[in-house]
Amino acid sequence: MSMMQECMEALSACMQACIMCADADAGEGMGRCAAMCANCADVCDTMMRMMLRTTGYDTQVMMSMMETCVKMCRACSAECNMHAEMSEHCRMCAMACDQAVMAMEKMMGAMKEMMPAS
Amino acid sequence: MSMMQECMEALSACMQACIMCADADAGEGMGRCAAMCANCADVCDTMMRMMLRTTGYDTQVMMSMMETCVKMCRACSAECNMHAEMSEHCRMCAMACDQAVMAMEKMMGAMKEMMPAS
Amino acid sequence: MSMMQECMEALSACMQACIMCADADAGEGMGRCAAMCANCADVCDTMMRMMLRTTGYDTQVMMSMMETCVKMCRACSAECNMHAEMSEHCRMCAMACDQAVMAMEKMMGAMKEMMPAS
Amino acid sequence: MSMMQECMEALSACMQACIMCADADAGEGMGRCAAMCANCADVCDTMMRMMLRTTGYDTQVMMSMMETCVKMCRACSAECNMHAEMSEHCRMCAMACDQAVMAMEKMMGAMKEMMPAS
Repeated sequence: MSMMQECMEALSACMQACIMCADADAGEGMGRCAAMCANCADVCDTMMRMMLRTTGYDTQVMMSMMETCVKMCRACSAECNMHAEMSEHCRMCAMACDQAVMAMEKMMGAMKEMMPAS
Repeated sequence: MSMMQECMEALSACMQACIMCADADAGEGMGRCAAMCANCADVCDTMMRMMLRTTGYDTQVMMSMMETCVKMCRACSAECNMHAEMSEHCRMCAMACDQAVMAMEKMMGAMKEMMPAS
Repeated sequence: MSMMQECMEALSACMQACIMCADADAGEGMGRCAAMCANCADVCDTMMRMMLRTTGYDTQVMMSMMETCVKMCRACSAECNMHAEMSEHCRMCAMACDQAVMAMEKMMGAMKEMMPAS
Repeated sequence: MSMMQECMEALSACMQACIMCADADAGEGMGRCAAMCANCADVCDTMMRMMLRTTGYDTQVMMSMMETCVKMCRACSAECNMHAEMSEHCRMCAMACDQAVMAMEKMMGAMKEMMPAS
């Protein structure tokens, strides 16, 4: 349970960092970074909403969405890291993405243990 | 009913035009336009979702949200119109915003007629 | 700044409580509460996103959205309070809505002070 | 291009059908259907937003999100189909999910053809 809470907090923080980064990027003409951050914000938002809706859990869908969210956060972090030295918002966004990845990987590990062998 | 359908279609089209405009703006360093379009997309999305949830109608909240959505679309249209001549995505976004405003004003007129005098 | 941070945290917490409440409501046949909570979650989400996009600030639109968000949170809290004694998720959701209202009213007070007299 | 337009229209229609279905479900105590529809609406919304942001395309992330969206729509359709005979909103939602699946599979087929062999 606390692992799930931790994961949702990391997703919420990542979504917020992504929206701020996309906003700042746009004024600097960093189109690709802005678009990836905007996508990452929406993916994290949806991931968090799905985790909050315990009544609708479907393990297959949940795992698939979490794997997508990890890929999205990794891609966003890689993009942001390319300009982390010159822009603080990118450095913070990359960090928030990395934190979200770590929290989700921990969560997926626990989910896999709970799934029946197939 | 068809008035409501028309309104939701205009909101959906506006949301899509806003996301495309924000995406293109970011690559061109048009930060303010990108941010207003991103906001307008989210406001239209939420407005449409509220209209679809007929079980939760609260006339006061609905009217207030629609007035906000009209203001948001007008502000976004004004911003986009400033660069509509040089960028096609801004011209299309401004048009979609104007259409959404017209559809909502028609809808609010009908809603006001249905409300009891107070 | 810290007032704004506080406000966004209250909005994020409110959004999360609303999604959990809507999810639980649905299994209990509480349709109106579920719909109001789903609406309130979307409105708070959009409000928070707008606050994070500092590049696109438009005081008129921001004030209007915040007033709408206050009305939405009040309506949701009133609905949830009707069944707060029998369902814990409604009690928690109503509390989160009330916190969000307080944080936004503080914020709007400060915004009004900064606006020029008209 | 028209394939992409078709896909986004199917996603938009699916999102709308899902929100209406979730709303009606909640009043009928159909908690699991409501939660799956709410999740499906958010996943489709995010999928559509990602398709609209052409500047941020990352083929790996896009494919992964589309596969997740297909799984989500399939799971939602399966759930809705269980009560499609007694509730019209479930029948319509299942149909919209199936349409979205078809449009995305067509799209993914075309995307795979464009990807380099690896």
